[in-house]
Amino acid sequence: MTIAVLFGAKSFEHEISVVSAIALKKVLNSEIVYIFCDYDRNFYLIPTDKINSKRFSSGEYKKDKSLYLKNGGFFYKKAFGEGQVSCDFMINLVHGSDGEDGKLSSMLDFYSIPYIGPRIEGSCVSYNKLLTKLYAKEVGVHVLDYQVLRKNSEDLIKIPFPFIIKPLRLGSSIGIGIVKEASELSYALDVAFEFDDTVLVEPFISGVKEYNLAGCYAKKYLFSIIEEPQKEEFLDFNKKYLDFSRTKRVNEAELSQALEEDIKESFSKLYNPLFLGALIRCDFFIIDGKVYLNEINPIPGSMANYLFDDFNSVIESLSQNLPSQINVPKEYKYINSIQAAKGK
Amino acid sequence: MTIAVLFGAKSFEHEISVVSAIALKKVLNSEIVYIFCDYDRNFYLIPTDKINSKRFSSGEYKKDKSLYLKNGGFFYKKAFGEGQVSCDFMINLVHGSDGEDGKLSSMLDFYSIPYIGPRIEGSCVSYNKLLTKLYAKEVGVHVLDYQVLRKNSEDLIKIPFPFIIKPLRLGSSIGIGIVKEASELSYALDVAFEFDDTVLVEPFISGVKEYNLAGCYAKKYLFSIIEEPQKEEFLDFNKKYLDFSRTKRVNEAELSQALEEDIKESFSKLYNPLFLGALIRCDFFIIDGKVYLNEINPIPGSMANYLFDDFNSVIESLSQNLPSQINVPKEYKYINSIQAAKGK
Repeated sequence: MTIAVLFGAKSFEHEISVVSAIALKKVLNSEIVYIFCDYDRNFYLIPTDKINSKRFSSGEYKKDKSLYLKNGGFFYKKAFGEGQVSCDFMINLVHGSDGEDGKLSSMLDFYSIPYIGPRIEGSCVSYNKLLTKLYAKEVGVHVLDYQVLRKNSEDLIKIPFPFIIKPLRLGSSIGIGIVKEASELSYALDVAFEFDDTVLVEPFISGVKEYNLAGCYAKKYLFSIIEEPQKEEFLDFNKKYLDFSRTKRVNEAELSQALEEDIKESFSKLYNPLFLGALIRCDFFIIDGKVYLNEINPIPGSMANYLFDDFNSVIESLSQNLPSQINVPKEYKYINSIQAAKGK
Repeated sequence: MTIAVLFGAKSFEHEISVVSAIALKKVLNSEIVYIFCDYDRNFYLIPTDKINSKRFSSGEYKKDKSLYLKNGGFFYKKAFGEGQVSCDFMINLVHGSDGEDGKLSSMLDFYSIPYIGPRIEGSCVSYNKLLTKLYAKEVGVHVLDYQVLRKNSEDLIKIPFPFIIKPLRLGSSIGIGIVKEASELSYALDVAFEFDDTVLVEPFISGVKEYNLAGCYAKKYLFSIIEEPQKEEFLDFNKKYLDFSRTKRVNEAELSQALEEDIKESFSKLYNPLFLGALIRCDFFIIDGKVYLNEINPIPGSMANYLFDDFNSVIESLSQNLPSQINVPKEYKYINSIQAAKGK
């Protein structure tokens, strides 16, 4: 089995993706081919034995084979004709924009390339924190109270201090700030608005219990252990960054069976059918014994490999149960009937 | 000014898109280049003077210049090197899947090609009728009651007869059926489930007043007239089909000024910021003096040209006010700092 790992791209989380991709080399048993998308959105085939972070930061990758996308896969030019990068399926490991906002999913779908990763709708719903809230509520999963604020709007924030301000899109804690009193507000808004023209305001609950569960559906749910992440006030960018290179197993959270089941049930409500084909990680809060969705990571750092007992078999099962696209008959029924009527 | 019209693609509405594209030739004053995407998702440059529906139904287009997408636009091979299709911007005129579900928008965004059409999020929200409902409610626009039904689910329909069953995705009335009594249910469900594994059930209100408003935002709102479409029980596929080739002005609906303003206000709530860059048509119901959203057409048939006094100037203004993508600094800050720490 050969897996192509797609990473990089035009994203604030470009570097995270590089780190995440390199981490996968240690944990995947299969043969890996690495397809790098640079900040300018050019694709390169990176030799698996030579991959390291410096290859990208130094620009050395530009000497690697240049690739382009078309029906069926990634191709490269040869002296005569072209060659195709051979793989059984791809893993979309582009974190943040391009990867998690639906762009690359769209392109892989359009060119009929099988891949593990969120499809367009799942991407849009998880990338936009307002859509995440609306969707979660609709499928019966609790979310924290929230308020959406547009840039230059004069709306007052109705959520009491302390609250947390997040750019409406993006992941990985970028642009997020906690506001404990009025004097901190303007700076936090400035930071968040650097990354999006809309921000989300949520109550900040100090010391809230957070639990992460990763999983996917492949004829049945394949769940990871539930992790209680170590955290400071909240996971900042540097902390999360380290997370993306993790390959070691973590300790399981200590939870009552009832709560564990609640968390898994919430995950399933969110996952199916929107995230079929993806291995996602959902981060939950538990408040007064109730499960709340914090966020959905449709492409978790290094695929949350460290949360699974047998990561390789999860990936293999999922790859054999990817959603198929709807079949569209190639017909010109209407045009033919008009032409027939016209006697053409 | 040269406009590239992108049409066709792998969609149940492929033929509609062909008809829609040909109709634009009559109404656009600018130079047009036609980029056709066939059912197999190969791109072709169709000579503008030779475009007619038979070119596609007969397969003759396959002799036209083959195109491929890459950074900056559509390209074709030349004896030596390659040429680029030259245009100032594109109009995404692919109705239904590929065009309205976000795939082609993603690709145009990814390759930094300026275009008129919905961006990814607007596409996902309007393509999926559940997301449309959730979003409309969130921004304060009324929607009809609804129920979502999954294939093979044993959920009972709680909405009283008569109701209307629609595939959750797709547009143009495909797969839609009205159910007036229990005996009609199973057939209507079968039809709808042919097109999607989830359907939406809504009350069917016989004789409800429907009003369509098209528009876009280009420094200010550019609205069309409000049309009261002629209709039978509901606009079926054939009727809507004809709609897509329309180029003649229609009659303005007779509405009180208050209602007209309500309709425009509802449009604006839905449009901004989700549909910036697109010319969309919103179809509303008026029930007991209140405005309800029926559906959002993010790529209306032949761009709803027949609803505008000066369609060409609307397109020109919009093309000069397309949303820009967020700027991502090309940096390897984190990786460089790690390498510095390691002394590499």
